[in-house]
Amino acid sequence: MLPKIETINLLKLASGDILSLQVYKFIGKQPGKKVYIQSNLHGGEIVGNAVIQQLIEYLSTVEENALKGEIWLVPACNPLGTNQRGHFFATGRFNSYDGKNWNRIFWDYEKECDDLTEFARSHFQQSREIIRKNYLEKIQSAWQKELAKLKNPSSGTVSNQYRAVLQSLCLDADYVIDIHSSSNQAIDFLFCFKTREKSANYFLIDYGILMTEYDGDAFDEAFLKPWLALEKEFKNLGHDINFDLESWTLELGSGMTMNPDSVTKGVRGIKNYLLQKKVLQLDEIITNHKIKLVQRSAIKSYYAATGGMVQNRLPLCTEVKKGDLIYQLLSFNKQQQLPEIINVVAETDGIIFDLATNQSVNQGEYVLDILVID
Amino acid sequence: MLPKIETINLLKLASGDILSLQVYKFIGKQPGKKVYIQSNLHGGEIVGNAVIQQLIEYLSTVEENALKGEIWLVPACNPLGTNQRGHFFATGRFNSYDGKNWNRIFWDYEKECDDLTEFARSHFQQSREIIRKNYLEKIQSAWQKELAKLKNPSSGTVSNQYRAVLQSLCLDADYVIDIHSSSNQAIDFLFCFKTREKSANYFLIDYGILMTEYDGDAFDEAFLKPWLALEKEFKNLGHDINFDLESWTLELGSGMTMNPDSVTKGVRGIKNYLLQKKVLQLDEIITNHKIKLVQRSAIKSYYAATGGMVQNRLPLCTEVKKGDLIYQLLSFNKQQQLPEIINVVAETDGIIFDLATNQSVNQGEYVLDILVID
Amino acid sequence: MLPKIETINLLKLASGDILSLQVYKFIGKQPGKKVYIQSNLHGGEIVGNAVIQQLIEYLSTVEENALKGEIWLVPACNPLGTNQRGHFFATGRFNSYDGKNWNRIFWDYEKECDDLTEFARSHFQQSREIIRKNYLEKIQSAWQKELAKLKNPSSGTVSNQYRAVLQSLCLDADYVIDIHSSSNQAIDFLFCFKTREKSANYFLIDYGILMTEYDGDAFDEAFLKPWLALEKEFKNLGHDINFDLESWTLELGSGMTMNPDSVTKGVRGIKNYLLQKKVLQLDEIITNHKIKLVQRSAIKSYYAATGGMVQNRLPLCTEVKKGDLIYQLLSFNKQQQLPEIINVVAETDGIIFDLATNQSVNQGEYVLDILVID
Amino acid sequence: MLPKIETINLLKLASGDILSLQVYKFIGKQPGKKVYIQSNLHGGEIVGNAVIQQLIEYLSTVEENALKGEIWLVPACNPLGTNQRGHFFATGRFNSYDGKNWNRIFWDYEKECDDLTEFARSHFQQSREIIRKNYLEKIQSAWQKELAKLKNPSSGTVSNQYRAVLQSLCLDADYVIDIHSSSNQAIDFLFCFKTREKSANYFLIDYGILMTEYDGDAFDEAFLKPWLALEKEFKNLGHDINFDLESWTLELGSGMTMNPDSVTKGVRGIKNYLLQKKVLQLDEIITNHKIKLVQRSAIKSYYAATGGMVQNRLPLCTEVKKGDLIYQLLSFNKQQQLPEIINVVAETDGIIFDLATNQSVNQGEYVLDILVID
Repeated sequence: MLPKIETINLLKLASGDILSLQVYKFIGKQPGKKVYIQSNLHGGEIVGNAVIQQLIEYLSTVEENALKGEIWLVPACNPLGTNQRGHFFATGRFNSYDGKNWNRIFWDYEKECDDLTEFARSHFQQSREIIRKNYLEKIQSAWQKELAKLKNPSSGTVSNQYRAVLQSLCLDADYVIDIHSSSNQAIDFLFCFKTREKSANYFLIDYGILMTEYDGDAFDEAFLKPWLALEKEFKNLGHDINFDLESWTLELGSGMTMNPDSVTKGVRGIKNYLLQKKVLQLDEIITNHKIKLVQRSAIKSYYAATGGMVQNRLPLCTEVKKGDLIYQLLSFNKQQQLPEIINVVAETDGIIFDLATNQSVNQGEYVLDILVID
Repeated sequence: MLPKIETINLLKLASGDILSLQVYKFIGKQPGKKVYIQSNLHGGEIVGNAVIQQLIEYLSTVEENALKGEIWLVPACNPLGTNQRGHFFATGRFNSYDGKNWNRIFWDYEKECDDLTEFARSHFQQSREIIRKNYLEKIQSAWQKELAKLKNPSSGTVSNQYRAVLQSLCLDADYVIDIHSSSNQAIDFLFCFKTREKSANYFLIDYGILMTEYDGDAFDEAFLKPWLALEKEFKNLGHDINFDLESWTLELGSGMTMNPDSVTKGVRGIKNYLLQKKVLQLDEIITNHKIKLVQRSAIKSYYAATGGMVQNRLPLCTEVKKGDLIYQLLSFNKQQQLPEIINVVAETDGIIFDLATNQSVNQGEYVLDILVID
Repeated sequence: MLPKIETINLLKLASGDILSLQVYKFIGKQPGKKVYIQSNLHGGEIVGNAVIQQLIEYLSTVEENALKGEIWLVPACNPLGTNQRGHFFATGRFNSYDGKNWNRIFWDYEKECDDLTEFARSHFQQSREIIRKNYLEKIQSAWQKELAKLKNPSSGTVSNQYRAVLQSLCLDADYVIDIHSSSNQAIDFLFCFKTREKSANYFLIDYGILMTEYDGDAFDEAFLKPWLALEKEFKNLGHDINFDLESWTLELGSGMTMNPDSVTKGVRGIKNYLLQKKVLQLDEIITNHKIKLVQRSAIKSYYAATGGMVQNRLPLCTEVKKGDLIYQLLSFNKQQQLPEIINVVAETDGIIFDLATNQSVNQGEYVLDILVID
Repeated sequence: MLPKIETINLLKLASGDILSLQVYKFIGKQPGKKVYIQSNLHGGEIVGNAVIQQLIEYLSTVEENALKGEIWLVPACNPLGTNQRGHFFATGRFNSYDGKNWNRIFWDYEKECDDLTEFARSHFQQSREIIRKNYLEKIQSAWQKELAKLKNPSSGTVSNQYRAVLQSLCLDADYVIDIHSSSNQAIDFLFCFKTREKSANYFLIDYGILMTEYDGDAFDEAFLKPWLALEKEFKNLGHDINFDLESWTLELGSGMTMNPDSVTKGVRGIKNYLLQKKVLQLDEIITNHKIKLVQRSAIKSYYAATGGMVQNRLPLCTEVKKGDLIYQLLSFNKQQQLPEIINVVAETDGIIFDLATNQSVNQGEYVLDILVID
């Protein structure tokens, strides 16, 4: 099966050049779910591009009959971010123009939906399909108003014009997968929304963070939050409903690199998810994996208590006990003193989960994360 | 009267050098209010440094008897921001390390105060002085816990370590003035909190934005929001109380410059405020000024609908009518077409309020603000 | 007469997007000189884009008969530079990837031409046309070798790949005009090569810098230097020859802006140059203008002797006498001292020629230029 | 033996804070050579800081008697560079203000010494000591004039003010060692000047680049070039003289890290050098090491022929044959095509010598270096 490939104008630059998105659409014989997968929303997090390229290769070998629904793939989904440089490094986690984190700019319908309770009440008797259809129409209609604003003379910010194109691609999707990595160097993990824990296992990844509090500005949140809110409304009315809509952020390893293990894990996980969800109708499902889900607060970040250079830092995945030496800070001064070596210890038991690529730190700069184990 | 001058270590850099704050304290003969004035929180907004320098000069000529209370002045209050450069330009509106806006990082006690209603109830019978004292103690005690976290091995982010020093200087102040300017080029104005409208007139500035919604992360908000919340609690209990605590952000003209008019206006306004508040006990009060307060939504920002170069833009302060041409965009292309000149018109009546310094725009970049006049 | 418009692929970005150049070619009925005009080589110097747009408009009104030869116009000739941002500002004077100044990267044939003397000797008897033709062939052939290197697996740097496209457009031109401006705020002027002083008057600009020493890395130098070297060789052989090849850098006002006066002056000057050179065969020549040419050393730059903020700086074009106050530095400290105001005076008589846009200076940062008048 | 520790003001920032250098001076009982060692001239190349810290520790255990002459150590010798950030990364290879490479700004006396031949002639009969003394006086006197310029109202650039402090520390040194690393990830090596090849072995490092052409703007060059020029003048006069002055740039591994192996190698090499040079008078000399010196042209850099992401790149130190696959480029497009995987092969036999940390490349960005083996 060959994908349908579409190119979409994204933004015109001051120079008159246009940045675009390119969508690879695999469309199955039978209608079904719409899966939307993107990568490289943060400019340095390139690993998902290799994952998507391998998925394109794989899906090209799959028969149309074996795909129920459609799969849209958008690699390099943020050209402004991807192409941004500070010295040799990929600095596109935030827009160098306004400092905005590229993954905290999205449109969350829930924030402007004032009549959610009313909607739930009026749809209490309706089928899940009708509710899904009508609520999606409400979302789409609000989105059209949002897009219309950009046609005004005052138009909209870079963020708003960017999200206008990107979110238009997936508002009507069923499953959304956004592939990230650490900006630094990390273990593979994913972010999972409450009530979607079961599907988290499908990705065959060892760790997941269960999201409890969030504001809806991230890409995964912006997609799912309005639906979770609606489910909650129905629940309040005594009606348990789950729309089988899901949103996932995969975090595959390290920034500025496409670590082959992380790529392989990403491809394998997404394939298995598609199989489990019966989007791919093939017999290769892996079912016995169990992800370890933790609270976001279980990730404890360590910052430099003073300026200096990090040495003797424990490597990724090391298990530590409270009080263990996790790194040293070689700290210089300008007060006629000898350089100091400061020992820094773990505050809790845990696993070294993420490491700063840069071992030179001004006071307050990031050094490492520990996954706290109770 | 000479100021007491104190230098306070702020942050140690990777190189071992230390950035500091310097506080100029004028302390009157009689006890009274504590006024805290800072400038240059955003790195390019240097105008307040000249205002503070002139205030120091002025206060040095004032007799101790004429000052009731004390005035603390902190110029260049954000060295990391002030010294940051991207090419020749001052880019320190956000931290180049993490993209954080330097004025969206502050500690707002209200967010962690769970027993506000209870506190109000239990203090219903107390005098304003006792309430002020006890609530300040609660704030200070929570703040000490916040500071204690930084002593842990995991310490805290640059933002958290920075605010630890800065907010410690003014948690117990009565009047806080934070001097900013546009990052670009603007009219002078100020931000005013609800219920403090009367004092806004004292600054002898023509325009003010009345703050209705805010999250407490800005410096002025972080100081006053917990007190406004308490006032509201008392109001809910039927008890009108105003703590005579105030917080102001002055916006004096343009970035990367110290426009003499804006400096003069800033100095004159702050002096008059100090006189009106009887911190300075002299006979030079100007009383007949009336500020025009508008909603934040009255500031309408215009962004580039496509990439290009801005030309024939109206100058600052121009009055416009809906439909008036406000600027042209000279837009190039790479599709074998002639360059285009696009006319952009005002969506509403208003006044040209702020102008982008950079007239080269990628799609979505900022062009100008109009103050909407109904 | 309508231009022929060509789009040329320049560079592919990591995201898969392509940046391009667009060339507007006006081609006259009769053969003649080739004029090459570009703008915005430094990302913030946008003024030439408006000049070129107005030239396109103007030339579109000219009859084919009135144009002898051809005029190629390339606005926004450096998309990577033009679109680069640090905060709101255009920081594309140097590449943010490697710090390379975009106008110090060009290919200068003279550097690799080992047999120049021999070539001159062997062509001593030839006509100017034959010499021009044969030397251009030598240049083109060396250039092809340079381009071939980029086809190797090791390819070439951003600079080398960029110049490969840009210089290919104009190696065979007769007159090259590269429109720049100050990165900051300046008077209009131009750069003039020795022996081309007469033509400098045609641009109707008041000041010019006569280039005596240069390394050939700038765009104007890279074009003309090999020819000047050949002229010199012939002169050494006692043969005065001038190829009527010229190269100009116009500096039109300030950065990040398209000052209408500078645009008008640029358009007027280039038109008059084309008329004087009989490329445009019309009767509107202005002949009585006399440019003031000075040595590069006549531009004296002033840098901050210590850190602080610039105030009371004299405006552009002010005439100063040696010893005159030209600006003050408001300098803070962290040694418990009052802020200092430091007076800085002119070292020589002269004219204020260029001003830093940013009035906040770390020690050693740029403040202003004086054009020294003897 | 304890070092004498001196702090020297370097530059005042706009905020009023001062950046300083700190020199650790170990001074032996007996007079002798002056060794000057610095690290971290490029902001991300922190490895030398650990080397210097370990040298300080080591030298503190050495008896005064065992040190002939003195050793000055300057870690973190470029605070502006060290503290510079673009996102989480250390971008201080070039100044973010003007794009100047921090190691291409130094003062080379040879460039202004017009009477070198005359000096050599007039000293033909003198002893090496007298010549050394008199030439150093000439250098110092020219340097004083250079410094005096900074006292003028026009002062000097950041680069010039910075080098004024740094070069003042070592103009009179005998042996200069400047510790760098790759900005990316590399093998350990050093730069060696012609005629100093023998001493290169002392550092116990496997590879060295023999410098043949250079302009004197780098730190090591600026120190030694005037002396090499003088030696050459004497040689031209038939007088072979070697001043036993040496200058070394060590390149120890990778950027933003202090790889323990590279640190150990650096410390061991410098110690052995000091022993060999009899500055340290102890019995631990290692004498049998033989460095492999290659021409600079033996380092072949590979740049991306188009934009994309690097995958399957060979690791550091891999031996390759001409035609071997060295990396793949995963290249996306916006022309409705499938992503491409481009194989890139070695142009020559060699060893993988340096690898880009960032595997996302715009066209022309750096991928890897091969050390060409004939």
